[in-house]
Amino acid sequence: MVATERKYKVIGTRPVRHDGVDKVTGRAEYGADLQLPGLLIGRVKRSPHAHANIVRIDASKALQLEGVHAVVTFADFPDPGERIVGTVRGPTPLKRLVGHIMADRKVVYRGQPVAAVAATDPHIAEDALELIEVEYELLEPVLDVQEAMLETAPVLHDDLYTEEVAGIAAKGEAHAQRASNIAKHVELRLGDVEAGFAEADVVLEREYATTMVHQGYIEPHTSTALWKEDGLLDIWTSTQGAFGIRSTTAQLLDLPESRLRVVPMEIGGGFGAKLKPYLEPVAALLSKQTGRPVKMTMTRQEVLEASGPTSGTHMRVKIGAKRDGTLVAAEAHLAFEAGAFPGSPYIAGARCAFGPYNIPNHYVEAWDVVLNKPQVSAYRAPGAPAAAFGVESLLDELAEQLDIDPIDLRLKNVADEGTRRTDGATFPVIGAREVMEAIKNSDHYRSELQGENRGRGIALGFWFNGGNESSAYASVNGDGTVALVLGSVDIGGQRVALAMQLAETLGITAAEVKPQVVDTDSIGFTANTGGSRTTFASGWAVYEAAMEIRLKMEERAAQIWEADRGSVHYDDDGVIRGPAAEDGAERALTFKELAGRLAGSGGMIQGRADVKPVTVGPAFAGHIADVEVDTETGKTQVLRYTAVQDVGTAVHPSYVEGQLQGGAAQGIGMALTEEYVFGDDGRMQNSSLLDYRMPTTLDLPMIETILVEVPNPGHPYGVRGVGEVPIVPPMATVANAIYDAIGIRMRKAPATPRAILDELHPEG
Amino acid sequence: MVATERKYKVIGTRPVRHDGVDKVTGRAEYGADLQLPGLLIGRVKRSPHAHANIVRIDASKALQLEGVHAVVTFADFPDPGERIVGTVRGPTPLKRLVGHIMADRKVVYRGQPVAAVAATDPHIAEDALELIEVEYELLEPVLDVQEAMLETAPVLHDDLYTEEVAGIAAKGEAHAQRASNIAKHVELRLGDVEAGFAEADVVLEREYATTMVHQGYIEPHTSTALWKEDGLLDIWTSTQGAFGIRSTTAQLLDLPESRLRVVPMEIGGGFGAKLKPYLEPVAALLSKQTGRPVKMTMTRQEVLEASGPTSGTHMRVKIGAKRDGTLVAAEAHLAFEAGAFPGSPYIAGARCAFGPYNIPNHYVEAWDVVLNKPQVSAYRAPGAPAAAFGVESLLDELAEQLDIDPIDLRLKNVADEGTRRTDGATFPVIGAREVMEAIKNSDHYRSELQGENRGRGIALGFWFNGGNESSAYASVNGDGTVALVLGSVDIGGQRVALAMQLAETLGITAAEVKPQVVDTDSIGFTANTGGSRTTFASGWAVYEAAMEIRLKMEERAAQIWEADRGSVHYDDDGVIRGPAAEDGAERALTFKELAGRLAGSGGMIQGRADVKPVTVGPAFAGHIADVEVDTETGKTQVLRYTAVQDVGTAVHPSYVEGQLQGGAAQGIGMALTEEYVFGDDGRMQNSSLLDYRMPTTLDLPMIETILVEVPNPGHPYGVRGVGEVPIVPPMATVANAIYDAIGIRMRKAPATPRAILDELHPEG
Repeated sequence: MVATERKYKVIGTRPVRHDGVDKVTGRAEYGADLQLPGLLIGRVKRSPHAHANIVRIDASKALQLEGVHAVVTFADFPDPGERIVGTVRGPTPLKRLVGHIMADRKVVYRGQPVAAVAATDPHIAEDALELIEVEYELLEPVLDVQEAMLETAPVLHDDLYTEEVAGIAAKGEAHAQRASNIAKHVELRLGDVEAGFAEADVVLEREYATTMVHQGYIEPHTSTALWKEDGLLDIWTSTQGAFGIRSTTAQLLDLPESRLRVVPMEIGGGFGAKLKPYLEPVAALLSKQTGRPVKMTMTRQEVLEASGPTSGTHMRVKIGAKRDGTLVAAEAHLAFEAGAFPGSPYIAGARCAFGPYNIPNHYVEAWDVVLNKPQVSAYRAPGAPAAAFGVESLLDELAEQLDIDPIDLRLKNVADEGTRRTDGATFPVIGAREVMEAIKNSDHYRSELQGENRGRGIALGFWFNGGNESSAYASVNGDGTVALVLGSVDIGGQRVALAMQLAETLGITAAEVKPQVVDTDSIGFTANTGGSRTTFASGWAVYEAAMEIRLKMEERAAQIWEADRGSVHYDDDGVIRGPAAEDGAERALTFKELAGRLAGSGGMIQGRADVKPVTVGPAFAGHIADVEVDTETGKTQVLRYTAVQDVGTAVHPSYVEGQLQGGAAQGIGMALTEEYVFGDDGRMQNSSLLDYRMPTTLDLPMIETILVEVPNPGHPYGVRGVGEVPIVPPMATVANAIYDAIGIRMRKAPATPRAILDELHPEG
Repeated sequence: MVATERKYKVIGTRPVRHDGVDKVTGRAEYGADLQLPGLLIGRVKRSPHAHANIVRIDASKALQLEGVHAVVTFADFPDPGERIVGTVRGPTPLKRLVGHIMADRKVVYRGQPVAAVAATDPHIAEDALELIEVEYELLEPVLDVQEAMLETAPVLHDDLYTEEVAGIAAKGEAHAQRASNIAKHVELRLGDVEAGFAEADVVLEREYATTMVHQGYIEPHTSTALWKEDGLLDIWTSTQGAFGIRSTTAQLLDLPESRLRVVPMEIGGGFGAKLKPYLEPVAALLSKQTGRPVKMTMTRQEVLEASGPTSGTHMRVKIGAKRDGTLVAAEAHLAFEAGAFPGSPYIAGARCAFGPYNIPNHYVEAWDVVLNKPQVSAYRAPGAPAAAFGVESLLDELAEQLDIDPIDLRLKNVADEGTRRTDGATFPVIGAREVMEAIKNSDHYRSELQGENRGRGIALGFWFNGGNESSAYASVNGDGTVALVLGSVDIGGQRVALAMQLAETLGITAAEVKPQVVDTDSIGFTANTGGSRTTFASGWAVYEAAMEIRLKMEERAAQIWEADRGSVHYDDDGVIRGPAAEDGAERALTFKELAGRLAGSGGMIQGRADVKPVTVGPAFAGHIADVEVDTETGKTQVLRYTAVQDVGTAVHPSYVEGQLQGGAAQGIGMALTEEYVFGDDGRMQNSSLLDYRMPTTLDLPMIETILVEVPNPGHPYGVRGVGEVPIVPPMATVANAIYDAIGIRMRKAPATPRAILDELHPEG
């Protein structure tokens, strides 16, 4: 860890997480653990075809099967009409949201739901699926993003027209000439690109591609719904955001959102893919029909085929530099697979591509392209890893051409406070330079790498991080502890990281805080846990709630002492001090002492806050990989890997390190082994964890971490999000290392043994 | 209803209660409905003797029975030592609290727990109880309160000394000469009693007695505990106060209170008897030993024999009056059965005895007396019905002697604003006179009652009502509804009555509020639902939370309109109005409209409040009964019954009427049929609902109600507690009616057929 002065008592320590014991003893309640009286099991009938019209659905035989209680299809959903609703990805036609949950008159990817059944047990439900007859009229699928963009391609949605998006937020106008698979197109510009390239001594331009990959969370999607007789709907689900699920499910079912109560269960991984509903509205409709609770859980195959992986991409990147390494111009053209419905992270990719650098003239355009694959979901810094793969690989080539150390090339151009960003904003205090310097000074980078077919690579990554709305409510107990109520789902240590910020503010220990995540009826609106916003924004809400408690405890102490309000102060050590008594005795109460006196002096004290901070601190990560490539088999082994990152303030360093390690591991999977393999018919050919190869601990070295702490001046404790950016550099880092090892430039990820052999032996 | 001007839009209407559909459809979750993985069933081994030393407990055979997982006895509780802890009834030695939950070296009532077992099913648990061997050394029981007070009586606790209580709150000093069954003695004085009696033209003095009676809630006590590996303890229970259960259970188990999370389940009646723990600490210890959740539910026999009924009493009352009916002096001597441990409502009885009247000189003393019966619990206006039985019966005799109409005698002396109370305070604005006048003007009182052995009685009752601490948290949803989080357990319509106060304040409908009662980790401290405090104090918290929302919505509207903050006002009709726009257009947003714009303009809004109001509004009730006594069988039939009451502001009139009807029905039970019948051995001889005779709808006429509304000026909506005082007058009302019918003055309650026959035919 790069040493920073220790300013805090709790922040920066490593207390036991509050949810730890429950998790390791099996007490923690995940969605699939839920049992309710009269529970039915729901299952989804899915399309075996990637592209087809639905001619007929006949569920009559299924309904005759004993134990089958209900079947629902698109016809059971409220008519979405032409309504436009808000989603995480902006305004979206409701009919597309419904279509993704349950196909209407055509199916656009294999695995798309066409019907669902509720039965007394899973076996009957499974049998019932077989009895639902669906007649299809097959259509030609389109599975390649470049092909899908052609005017000659099969069109998925005859009412989808390309929308020209102006800037990163504003809604543009659709070009309604003809239906297209290009849902959206965005252009972002800075400076004069043409003039920039004219200045350049060296210009390189290359094409890159990445494949669809899955987040690979261990827990499949699982949701239980109970539609009660009074029209209220309870949903228990595995989600990263109970309020988000509430909102979208309410839209899908055409209900006021307050009719729904969403209970977020413990979550077994999400990484962005548990933000939008899949099973919730279906379980709800089955419950409405049966009057009983209905639980639905995906199989692994369903997770892989029919939840949301991240986009495959095709990219063209061009960079121009002066002889001294100064970058003068750049452009990138990024085509993102959206899957079967619009919604890829094309804008995020465009914003992040040149994010780490000060390139005065640059242009990025990106496309959101539908094709006959599952609709993508968010996946950890969505869009950024692909963009960084292209840009950071090209910078490596440029460094070689210019004969500059790759670190020095980056250091020469790295963004600083005040640098203009692709999205037009300027950077606040950031740690990009500090990260690069920490790499340069690291034991890993300074170590020598010896041996044949071994190489080292580095790459830099950027993620803008999120802010948005959070609520917190805290109440003091007489025993000097504090109960903390949160709306932020805990996907990776948020309970402890938020409790620590409360403890720091109050001058107590993390163990004296009892945090819990509650349902949507029990806490104020809190946005999704995602975008690396939670420890930042919910931490801020927690800080404000604690400050309110401090204020009230000052008032109370003043009242107890009959002292002037202004003369009493709650100090950061958790002691409330007042003026000396008449006999000269010091007046001071610890938090615990005063807590014990609240009941007898006017009652207990609570604090709450709702915040929507905008002073978000961007994140930068720089990774180093050493690899060895077996030129016989094509297999790449990662020998050593170090993740360096500006983490702002590491609230709980263990979980920060865990985020860096997890992100790096996933990124290495993207770099080397993970890919969606589709047949020509659009069928995924590796839809199991045996065939879809995520790296395990056996495949990876211990990921080393270096935490650089450049506090975010826009947060009371300097917090900046840490969870996403560590997945950004690995694809480029590993590709650069492979080049260093064997002189082969892998411009398509993943660099599987097959792909490397193909490059080594292009003759076949 | 006595007409008052309708000031409110929501308050005073009768919306459907939010918990109604769940209750009538069986969805509502009561304690016994709870199922948890690995659940064990706990049962209690109870003493068959009313008074005995425990020589030996041997659980070894029980532990050998297959399916038995644990046995606990007193030895498993932390040593209470000599610690004194706070309870609802004041400071109490912890050892007595533990002793009541689990006997130490002696048993002091039949039904007292001596051991408990946890097993895989209820039958095995029951069998195991038989296998626990307990050897007793029998002691003579004392079962009569007057006998128990004698120096010659068997002493229950050799370390219990009479404590002289000074005033109603201060703790006095114990007289440590010798152990006694008289736990406490209090004296309350006003004026010069001797001089007062000297002024009197008529002085009457009589003795009265009442018997132990049970609250008769339908749902037996039921608690489930899970002591987790991290030392945190979850308790699901049927209680009137989750925070009270948390506090006392924590004391009993010597845990910091924050280690416990108490979840209040729906409650099937409490009436005061579900305030203190019975099964909770036992289930907790069984769970600690087994590592599994343990559920314990009482049988009806256990409820009657071993939960807390209310005190039997013996009373002597003396009143002196002038010839014109002016009351000049009074005294009362009230002996309250505490059951086997101290804790009767002797002080409350003393405070209420002369409560409705302005008697310048009076004296009340009361004793808290232990004897070998179950320890009493609170029961609706605890202590007041017995005291009123004596005083109101005697006033009836006095009215007859003075030849004054009983209403007129009371009206002449009724308390008003400013009248000094027995406890030394003076009355704020009260409706005692209005209640008496409403009786006088009522259709019932003005109707003629004809027929043989028929008679009419009236009586007045007083209850001081409670205040204490409440918290509320409310968050606005985008659809214009509000989620309301409460700590007050809902025992009779609190959710709707509190939601209505929120709705009134915000200018929305009750249906647009979604209230819920949550656990002790999820809301700030909230005192028990009891003392008729909840609609008053929690209503105030809800009002304050709503006012905070109004404030924030004004701020937001000002921000949206870019208007001066001070020019924007949230009006009571739920419309936020600002200054006209530059083009003259009116600026106004309804609550719902603004709610829909919150997310886009800075985030959602919450409000919360914690209050501890002291401006409690006392309650007065006057009842009228017409009865017919069958002189052959002794059976008394209530022909017509009217309950008149100052209800302050009737928030939800249906539930207010329900409180009046329920209180009257329970009081009629006390008056006529309900009693604990003990054998000489201290065994209750009627411990089933077949033999313990609560009146059913078949036994009662429709109870008519007259709601008098004298708003409490100490509450934003004029609310005063309504739940308890309706049980105060019935015993006296019915006894007075019986006298009017057959000329027999029943000075012992209940006036069962046997008791009436004994009076009619004293020769036997």
